[in-house]
Amino acid sequence: MKNFSIAKSRRLRGTPYTSRIEKQGVTAYTIYNHMLLPAAFGSLEDSYHHLKEHVQVWDVAAERQVEITGKDAAKLVQLMTCRDLSKSKDGRCYYCPIIDDNAGLINDPVVLRFNENKWWVSIADTDVILFAKGLAIGNKFDVNIIEPEVDIMAVQGPKSFKLMEKVFGEKITNLKFFGFDYFDFAGAKHLIAQSGWSKQGGYEIYVENNEAGLKLYDHLFEIGDEFNIRAGCPNLIERIESGLLSQGNDMDNADNPYECGFDKYINIDSDVEFLGKEKLKKIKSEGIKRKLMGVKIDTDKISVTGSMNLTDEKNNIIGELRSGCYNPTFKQVIGIAMIKKPYFEAKQTFKIDINGNSFNGTVCDLPFI
Amino acid sequence: MKNFSIAKSRRLRGTPYTSRIEKQGVTAYTIYNHMLLPAAFGSLEDSYHHLKEHVQVWDVAAERQVEITGKDAAKLVQLMTCRDLSKSKDGRCYYCPIIDDNAGLINDPVVLRFNENKWWVSIADTDVILFAKGLAIGNKFDVNIIEPEVDIMAVQGPKSFKLMEKVFGEKITNLKFFGFDYFDFAGAKHLIAQSGWSKQGGYEIYVENNEAGLKLYDHLFEIGDEFNIRAGCPNLIERIESGLLSQGNDMDNADNPYECGFDKYINIDSDVEFLGKEKLKKIKSEGIKRKLMGVKIDTDKISVTGSMNLTDEKNNIIGELRSGCYNPTFKQVIGIAMIKKPYFEAKQTFKIDINGNSFNGTVCDLPFI
Repeated sequence: MKNFSIAKSRRLRGTPYTSRIEKQGVTAYTIYNHMLLPAAFGSLEDSYHHLKEHVQVWDVAAERQVEITGKDAAKLVQLMTCRDLSKSKDGRCYYCPIIDDNAGLINDPVVLRFNENKWWVSIADTDVILFAKGLAIGNKFDVNIIEPEVDIMAVQGPKSFKLMEKVFGEKITNLKFFGFDYFDFAGAKHLIAQSGWSKQGGYEIYVENNEAGLKLYDHLFEIGDEFNIRAGCPNLIERIESGLLSQGNDMDNADNPYECGFDKYINIDSDVEFLGKEKLKKIKSEGIKRKLMGVKIDTDKISVTGSMNLTDEKNNIIGELRSGCYNPTFKQVIGIAMIKKPYFEAKQTFKIDINGNSFNGTVCDLPFI
Repeated sequence: MKNFSIAKSRRLRGTPYTSRIEKQGVTAYTIYNHMLLPAAFGSLEDSYHHLKEHVQVWDVAAERQVEITGKDAAKLVQLMTCRDLSKSKDGRCYYCPIIDDNAGLINDPVVLRFNENKWWVSIADTDVILFAKGLAIGNKFDVNIIEPEVDIMAVQGPKSFKLMEKVFGEKITNLKFFGFDYFDFAGAKHLIAQSGWSKQGGYEIYVENNEAGLKLYDHLFEIGDEFNIRAGCPNLIERIESGLLSQGNDMDNADNPYECGFDKYINIDSDVEFLGKEKLKKIKSEGIKRKLMGVKIDTDKISVTGSMNLTDEKNNIIGELRSGCYNPTFKQVIGIAMIKKPYFEAKQTFKIDINGNSFNGTVCDLPFI
């Protein structure tokens, strides 16, 4: 596929780490929440193998926070998500589909609860702040909504635990998955969660002070040699293999959370009030008509830049591929597809046209591993 | 400056015209409303000269529409903008700053009024649909809000009028600036406005039927030789020279419309209800503390990828450059900067650091030409 340059401008702003990663070999960007998000440091395959064995530091400052504070903060956050947060705990992260009144997905953030009156919504690539502001204004909620200056760096990979222990001491090993707390480095406090957009384990450091964050960033590389540390970024191969869904790629506002397999985050039988609840009850009672599934395709190359139709032997469209890439572990292309009823069963076969050539594929369950 | 590739994916989706422009020589993209927006076809300077003399067809499908219909449609559109739309007319376009309850700019769309109960908000690069949905839900407005499948192609440049007359006949020459109407081509109706993101004159064709749109696209190139037609895109040099502001580049949610020189679109003395009205009255009575101005810099090269400080001879920061590029007509760099009080006067001088070198500059009024 031909390469095209990205035309940078203030509207697609850089992060505190951009100057660092451009020295460290970033080769491609995507845009995420109006910011530069690194997408490749040379070979995706090479980075994939490295991520699964060692440790990487990622500039994921583009995961922006929507900070909601005030007397009605909990009410507003709950209104936006179908997940029941009434029993949520301070210092914990929650994966929360955000939906509109028609149960269409708007975002799939991780929500951080500081306390009843302070939340961060750590968003995927849509302007959730505008939805929150609109709802707050319309409902006359007593809240304050801002995008704070928080620039996440992620430390991901199996060796992230040892690396972070070396920096922050044994205390950080007590942090549970999706727990967060404050940890000191060189006189600065950093909010750190055990989380991240890979299944290889690790942490996300919510940097609120640029200077202290860059000091930490540099320190990680100074002491990380023994862990074979590298600069990296969310890896397309790894995230698909791990079944980590991406708003805008795998699902969008035309999809509902049941179709995306978010059943365990949908609490229609709870007492809490949220948008789209009645619609979700209706969808549940009628049953879904399509579903996100894995697919395996008998080829070693694909570039998914939009929906690609999947057809059966009679040329009926059975669904559409939304993400995909060659996976060196499976030694074929794997991807994520929205498959129609009644085809959304593992082992369903299909054909796909890639640049004028037809290839065979099979539907499977998610995640792949 | 080093070039970086753009990592394409469904989340940064292409347009109906993408395959066309990739054959026609697009070299760089920006991302706008989660879509590919062409940013360069080779040399910006060459395209600039061409645009000012001839005619170009632009893929600006990334200018998405937020369609608001229903009984409360007018009320919702008015709530979002400080411009009084109570006397707006069917079939007309209106440039309308959208602000939040704190008078911070959210977007600066062109609003198309079909009738009292149907509007399109033709947006710059923020998810206005989420703001509109939040407000509508919170206020229990009787409206329907969607992003329709509309993919604009623009025909821009001084020869656009003759070219469009050749296609649509004399009727189109009667279309006034910021008027819109439906015109036929090859059996399909297209909504066409006399508008566009250049000051060279032209039209925007709001294509609602892909197939018919591509037929028209191809036809323009088939018959356009005599007008020296080319594929193009919004041109950084031309848009800065013409003082066309860009949301996210020149202004953002931290700026209010008075600071951006939008005074004639702010109707605080009207009877209509809109967000931020009281805040705007306060800002007006207190006077603004900074203002968007033009700047000229004594150098022939700059790459603005974020805010750049401007300082006076005592090293006080007098403002920040937000957009800029070399302009071959002025034979120097010109740009758009937010300048603090009391420095926002034409002829104010400043210094700017570009890659470690200091250059002299002067503040001036907008637009440049």
